[in-house]
Amino acid sequence: MNRDSPLDNLRVVLVETSHPGNIGAAARAMKVMGLSRLYLVNPRCAIDDEARARASGAVDLLEAAVLSDSLDAALADTVLAAACTARRRDLPHPAYTPRQAAPLLLSEARAAPVALVFGSETFGLSNEQLARCRWLINIPANPAYMSLNLAAAVQVLAYELRSSLQDATIPLPAFEPARHEEVEGFFAELERTLVAIGFLDPASPKRLMPRLRRLFARAGLEKEEVAILRGILGAINKRSGQ
Amino acid sequence: MNRDSPLDNLRVVLVETSHPGNIGAAARAMKVMGLSRLYLVNPRCAIDDEARARASGAVDLLEAAVLSDSLDAALADTVLAAACTARRRDLPHPAYTPRQAAPLLLSEARAAPVALVFGSETFGLSNEQLARCRWLINIPANPAYMSLNLAAAVQVLAYELRSSLQDATIPLPAFEPARHEEVEGFFAELERTLVAIGFLDPASPKRLMPRLRRLFARAGLEKEEVAILRGILGAINKRSGQ
Repeated sequence: MNRDSPLDNLRVVLVETSHPGNIGAAARAMKVMGLSRLYLVNPRCAIDDEARARASGAVDLLEAAVLSDSLDAALADTVLAAACTARRRDLPHPAYTPRQAAPLLLSEARAAPVALVFGSETFGLSNEQLARCRWLINIPANPAYMSLNLAAAVQVLAYELRSSLQDATIPLPAFEPARHEEVEGFFAELERTLVAIGFLDPASPKRLMPRLRRLFARAGLEKEEVAILRGILGAINKRSGQ
Repeated sequence: MNRDSPLDNLRVVLVETSHPGNIGAAARAMKVMGLSRLYLVNPRCAIDDEARARASGAVDLLEAAVLSDSLDAALADTVLAAACTARRRDLPHPAYTPRQAAPLLLSEARAAPVALVFGSETFGLSNEQLARCRWLINIPANPAYMSLNLAAAVQVLAYELRSSLQDATIPLPAFEPARHEEVEGFFAELERTLVAIGFLDPASPKRLMPRLRRLFARAGLEKEEVAILRGILGAINKRSGQ
């Protein structure tokens, strides 16, 4: 990420977290997706060896974490705070899925700090805390078991932000595709070979060649692959004395 | 999820996992998104108290986990195996982001089992293990720190599958796809045949089989196609007196 990445303007605010392991794992989840600003509001635990172990190579985020004694302090300067919660129906906030929210969050974060707010493992966010946030983000979950781990929720949001930022496609390695006449040359030699080895009866060809054409059409043959396949056909023909 | 959900056909296969906490957290990550089929290939640790603590309400998935002593055993009956890995450039597989892969995985899983394969925390997947998988899935990450936790990777994939399922109607595949062991049986016979006709030198195999695996992986072989291809190999072997 360059210095101007909107990810640098995205704060992860953990409120009243109880388990040091979750703070560490949240730091790792952030760093692996390119987020770096961790805020801890009244944590109920110390940043201990377990936190550092779970942070792995993201201990720097723990060391740089901003400790606040109120949610308002952690939200100072932000232009948007979004609460990540399973709650929804009883609240008046606009609610988004992570996928819907990510581009909007990034758009705001191009200009000014934006916060993602996560409540405690046991109690979530209070109504008063939720009232400080403009949006809700609801991560889709199994209605029969909605108990998403705190660091896993941070991971999903961080992943969505990075995916949304990055061009959605990772290009396939650029191989040179075969030309029409090369592919047709291969099919012609394949057909001759299948006749020669007695697998294809020219008097009753059935659907054999169309089936094979369909298979290779799905793959989309590359130039080098045609060369390999024709080499194999050459070896077969030599062997069977054609 | 109802009985017909494609999520019921999605296996999470953890290979040679070292940390019980990661197995537990992976189970929780799965259940919260509606996945339930956990496979453990040669785990390097026990399912202990730490695993159960991190699984939280998903201890049932740990208890139902299938233990296998080989990746092939865990992939038996699957029609598609996708390896989740940070590796890409040196490999011939088609590579997708989780977002690109999710609808395709769900489409296959409507008809038959599909596997998501995750390597060990330290060593990832070996080349031989990767060769058993048709696709790669690369989770986008910070190039300066790519160290995604194993359970966090499971969480991201499970989240994408659930999001994708909720987003769209997914078509049934039109033809019956080949199972893992059928495809592996074809590759084994292909390799023997190429050696027999003198095209493949076992002392210097180069990249021939990986190249051919890549070609057929792109196509995604159907059951009938495997039967045709094995018929051709049988005719070649008969002809050249094998």
